[in-house]
Amino acid sequence: MLKVGVVGATGYTGEEMVRLLSGHAKVKLAYLSAILDKEEPVADIFPSLAGKIDLVCRKPNIEETVRETDLVFLALPHRVSMEVAPKFLSAGKKVIDLSADYRLSPDAYKIWYGAEHKDKANIEKAVYGLPELYADRIKKAAFVANPGCYPTSIILAVAPALKNELVYPDNIIADSKSGVTGAGRKADLALSFAEVNENVKAYKVNAHQHKPEINKILSDVARKTIDIIFTPHLIPMNRGILSTIYMRLKKGTAAKDVIGQYKNFYRGKPFVRVLDDGRLPQTKDVVMTNWCDIGIVVKDGLLIAVSCIDNLTKGAAGQAVQNMNLMCGFDEREGLV
Amino acid sequence: MLKVGVVGATGYTGEEMVRLLSGHAKVKLAYLSAILDKEEPVADIFPSLAGKIDLVCRKPNIEETVRETDLVFLALPHRVSMEVAPKFLSAGKKVIDLSADYRLSPDAYKIWYGAEHKDKANIEKAVYGLPELYADRIKKAAFVANPGCYPTSIILAVAPALKNELVYPDNIIADSKSGVTGAGRKADLALSFAEVNENVKAYKVNAHQHKPEINKILSDVARKTIDIIFTPHLIPMNRGILSTIYMRLKKGTAAKDVIGQYKNFYRGKPFVRVLDDGRLPQTKDVVMTNWCDIGIVVKDGLLIAVSCIDNLTKGAAGQAVQNMNLMCGFDEREGLV
Amino acid sequence: MLKVGVVGATGYTGEEMVRLLSGHAKVKLAYLSAILDKEEPVADIFPSLAGKIDLVCRKPNIEETVRETDLVFLALPHRVSMEVAPKFLSAGKKVIDLSADYRLSPDAYKIWYGAEHKDKANIEKAVYGLPELYADRIKKAAFVANPGCYPTSIILAVAPALKNELVYPDNIIADSKSGVTGAGRKADLALSFAEVNENVKAYKVNAHQHKPEINKILSDVARKTIDIIFTPHLIPMNRGILSTIYMRLKKGTAAKDVIGQYKNFYRGKPFVRVLDDGRLPQTKDVVMTNWCDIGIVVKDGLLIAVSCIDNLTKGAAGQAVQNMNLMCGFDEREGLV
Amino acid sequence: MLKVGVVGATGYTGEEMVRLLSGHAKVKLAYLSAILDKEEPVADIFPSLAGKIDLVCRKPNIEETVRETDLVFLALPHRVSMEVAPKFLSAGKKVIDLSADYRLSPDAYKIWYGAEHKDKANIEKAVYGLPELYADRIKKAAFVANPGCYPTSIILAVAPALKNELVYPDNIIADSKSGVTGAGRKADLALSFAEVNENVKAYKVNAHQHKPEINKILSDVARKTIDIIFTPHLIPMNRGILSTIYMRLKKGTAAKDVIGQYKNFYRGKPFVRVLDDGRLPQTKDVVMTNWCDIGIVVKDGLLIAVSCIDNLTKGAAGQAVQNMNLMCGFDEREGLV
Repeated sequence: MLKVGVVGATGYTGEEMVRLLSGHAKVKLAYLSAILDKEEPVADIFPSLAGKIDLVCRKPNIEETVRETDLVFLALPHRVSMEVAPKFLSAGKKVIDLSADYRLSPDAYKIWYGAEHKDKANIEKAVYGLPELYADRIKKAAFVANPGCYPTSIILAVAPALKNELVYPDNIIADSKSGVTGAGRKADLALSFAEVNENVKAYKVNAHQHKPEINKILSDVARKTIDIIFTPHLIPMNRGILSTIYMRLKKGTAAKDVIGQYKNFYRGKPFVRVLDDGRLPQTKDVVMTNWCDIGIVVKDGLLIAVSCIDNLTKGAAGQAVQNMNLMCGFDEREGLV
Repeated sequence: MLKVGVVGATGYTGEEMVRLLSGHAKVKLAYLSAILDKEEPVADIFPSLAGKIDLVCRKPNIEETVRETDLVFLALPHRVSMEVAPKFLSAGKKVIDLSADYRLSPDAYKIWYGAEHKDKANIEKAVYGLPELYADRIKKAAFVANPGCYPTSIILAVAPALKNELVYPDNIIADSKSGVTGAGRKADLALSFAEVNENVKAYKVNAHQHKPEINKILSDVARKTIDIIFTPHLIPMNRGILSTIYMRLKKGTAAKDVIGQYKNFYRGKPFVRVLDDGRLPQTKDVVMTNWCDIGIVVKDGLLIAVSCIDNLTKGAAGQAVQNMNLMCGFDEREGLV
Repeated sequence: MLKVGVVGATGYTGEEMVRLLSGHAKVKLAYLSAILDKEEPVADIFPSLAGKIDLVCRKPNIEETVRETDLVFLALPHRVSMEVAPKFLSAGKKVIDLSADYRLSPDAYKIWYGAEHKDKANIEKAVYGLPELYADRIKKAAFVANPGCYPTSIILAVAPALKNELVYPDNIIADSKSGVTGAGRKADLALSFAEVNENVKAYKVNAHQHKPEINKILSDVARKTIDIIFTPHLIPMNRGILSTIYMRLKKGTAAKDVIGQYKNFYRGKPFVRVLDDGRLPQTKDVVMTNWCDIGIVVKDGLLIAVSCIDNLTKGAAGQAVQNMNLMCGFDEREGLV
Repeated sequence: MLKVGVVGATGYTGEEMVRLLSGHAKVKLAYLSAILDKEEPVADIFPSLAGKIDLVCRKPNIEETVRETDLVFLALPHRVSMEVAPKFLSAGKKVIDLSADYRLSPDAYKIWYGAEHKDKANIEKAVYGLPELYADRIKKAAFVANPGCYPTSIILAVAPALKNELVYPDNIIADSKSGVTGAGRKADLALSFAEVNENVKAYKVNAHQHKPEINKILSDVARKTIDIIFTPHLIPMNRGILSTIYMRLKKGTAAKDVIGQYKNFYRGKPFVRVLDDGRLPQTKDVVMTNWCDIGIVVKDGLLIAVSCIDNLTKGAAGQAVQNMNLMCGFDEREGLV
């Protein structure tokens, strides 16, 4: 059994990591840590996990983590991951980082995250963990940068169209609607119930830090520079992201052809469902699962793709498990269906 | 005192009409009707209105309505309004129709609402009741077609840019997020709490019946044919619409200039607020009010406008009162602030 | 015009005070203050109030407040009100305190609020501002202690039964369900959307600080010591409290008789509605209003009363306006319907 | 592998049955039926189940069901179960009925469900499927009447106190707060989003059809007639029930003693968690699990128990699986943790 640990286990992403790993047949969840006043059983912190797992959440300790695990998930805020990742890597551990710290070039990181990167050497070793695009590299990787939630929902809906040159590469517009857990577990007036409930707002219009991540990967897919337009919105629900993406078709390809090409693109990929013509996805069908559902509308020269994921599962912890499965030679679906 | 009536008083729009009219200083709410098993006080149907109004809701009766009112609001489903509107008009009543029956040409109506129009003669007499664009005509009108909720939120956010030729007229994309009351008050599994809560979905992608209404008015503003792309989404809240609209700037106009031109366009219009640079609207700031709030972002050659209204107030009943105020020579804000 | 001020204008209660006072025909809302980084128009803080009020919210300043107002509403946290109330009172201002600072005896205050009271002299001058019970005293008062939200919902549902000796005075159980705004406007993980949404919990079971307030007033009504059992619950909605109260009937009084006695008790009281036999209240019928709706069920020797209020209106700011109306000789309903 | 079927697979309970059974290691989910326009894969009806199960939902057909299953779950409305249960029983199948049809005596059934029972012979053969009380009988049963959701939440919180004679048996009050899925999956204006959201109401005060079921079982536990007072409330969330239960202590037993006795009572029962002194449960900790969490407060002569379950899991489908596990000799927790 592979011994795995989660560093930063008490956020929403950490909780989802524990939920998924506790049901995974090939690994032993051996170690949990977080910044805590006192160490206590994780089932006391997250009572829904009681009976599934009998493990104490520890205070952060690198040596202890190294000693007790073979693979480490970092469910940490950005800027914190880059402090600890190199230590686990130099100790020979496999690492999957769920923060944004290893997804961009050092220059882009500085612009979008406002800080000099402290571990530039490992950035190029990190493989971007979107298995539908990079499974071959992930299988050989010791270090995976797990994608952001918005990027996962957008890249998966755009990649087949760019790869197959169905659409013009400029003026792609992604309008995303996200539940609240995407913002993390914290005391913040703007996230309080009475501010979020019965409300919807746009934020960071075309200025969200996930934009360069999306552009980097889509440019790699298209083999040319892509610069999308991206507006995130906060809506009153806990989990889920729906992205509506507007692309201009190069020629009058029929909806069924487009859908057929999307289905081909994702043939053999176990977590993407391309819906049949006339069907549209909704987040409730993917919440608590690792699915990404994609619906396609072709109309008036446009290819409109609508994608749904659970931001904590396919958008974070589920995808991290999927990456671990590939890195360790397990069935890609293990622990996820 | 002007005697006013509401026909179709028991839907969400009808309830909002009664709420607003009961606080209006220049009119007497004299008549209410709806399809009912038995006639009963409207305060029994909508207990929040008790104390504000002491009126029995009657079963539909044209003669009675004609006798007891000077002006009639039709808060009826489409296809029903066109059965009764001509009767009130021929009896010399002022009429404000909140349905979609008099907003399109007969041909467009047939295509989008799936039925032959039964009162073509009055279509051209109906003035489109968007006061920010058509106040002069509304002041002289006896018959007003009150705009749809999505069109109100989109047209107000696009009109200044088209009128001032700030943007290219093609490829305008409107992505709207609506609360549930927009779908009306009815028993429908798709609208039930457990289906809508913790969920978001797109529907009628670029195929919603409000699209031709938006196109018709924007074409009139731009003096050329406009064909927008429009995707509505249902999100888990009761009231409010936020529309995010993507337009391509003709030249590198700065955000402050664009905002200045929007502010000029709406100078003297009492219900549109153009936010200062760097601010974005949210629906909670306009719910239960007649405000339309518009935020502007200029970036990467795009003008992104975000607008918020309450679908039942500025998107329906409040705008109907605003139209009545203009038709009857009252202060445009009477009963609305 | 009476010049009124609100000290502590930026909480949910303060916002509701401003909303109500800005529509009140007999007063001029002349002064607002709150702890702020910079002074700014209140319409910028609460955009829904724009157009209704054109006033800058100031930083706290006693002298300024004294100079510019005749009557002051204190929408402050407990422990803060008792620091400022004596200054306004000694300057001859009328004061309505919405905090808990003047509702209990000094001894009870110390037990339940954990601090020595700093203004004991004024406690006995403060009239408890529940107009349905104490209108005569309120009319003569210069200083009113505005009731808590839970006490308002419970006392109004119990008082007629105790006063008329319909029920045994012991073992009265009040089980209350509250929306989130009752907890105030603040950054607190326990109040964050993802913690409150899709959740219900009991808290402070029979140990909430509103319990001694309820007991004090009910004991005064019953002319004997009352000690209720009180459990508050937090449910996922913004506004409203529903209290279900279980009392044991002394004899087999029929439902209609009980309801008749409740209706008599509240005859002439403009904000309590006792529902007819067979009807039950719901919070949506009272939200954004000053109504308290009470439904009565008599069964198996029990009198079960269900009451609904909006915690921010009848449970706070609306009741404060009602008190002001009585203190100043205005119509009790002014500004509230 | 035991072949199991679900009759009535398209309600919320049916969906939860399929979710749980598809992950159960000892059974093969072999048959699904429901009233349908056309037969289709269950993964098309409930897309979240795709990948977990590859089965077509059939139109109801008794013979087919008999042929393809060893054990049948009836997730049917009351009055419908009693039409089909006898056919499966006489064919020698094990049956677990999730409706209310076999929980009461024929006389009580007629009073509370308004219809003559059509299968009286099998009522006494049905074992009430609350494993924490009746595991021995369930292990030998061929026919189990699965408890209602409210009864599960209330009986588990009261039984230890009655069994151990900690409390007086009269005047037990249960005040329950339920999410919306408890009302079933149907088109109903009262269940529509805009009616339920931002609202709370009591309904069927002390007159709900689950009351006789609760009384019957609690009387069996106490060996005397119990007649509780029970008020259900509808609150705006999808899943979960919290019941607050007020009982009068016979003597001054300390909280720790009471909690100790509760813990003893549930020793070895895998799905009840009695919380330590000072802790209270919340529904979010049990949603999507088979846990029943119970918190205890002792104060002023009262024992207040607060219990939380997921109405669709421990309150319906999860408990049904737990019953199957006992009936078939599987580990009681199989498929549930």
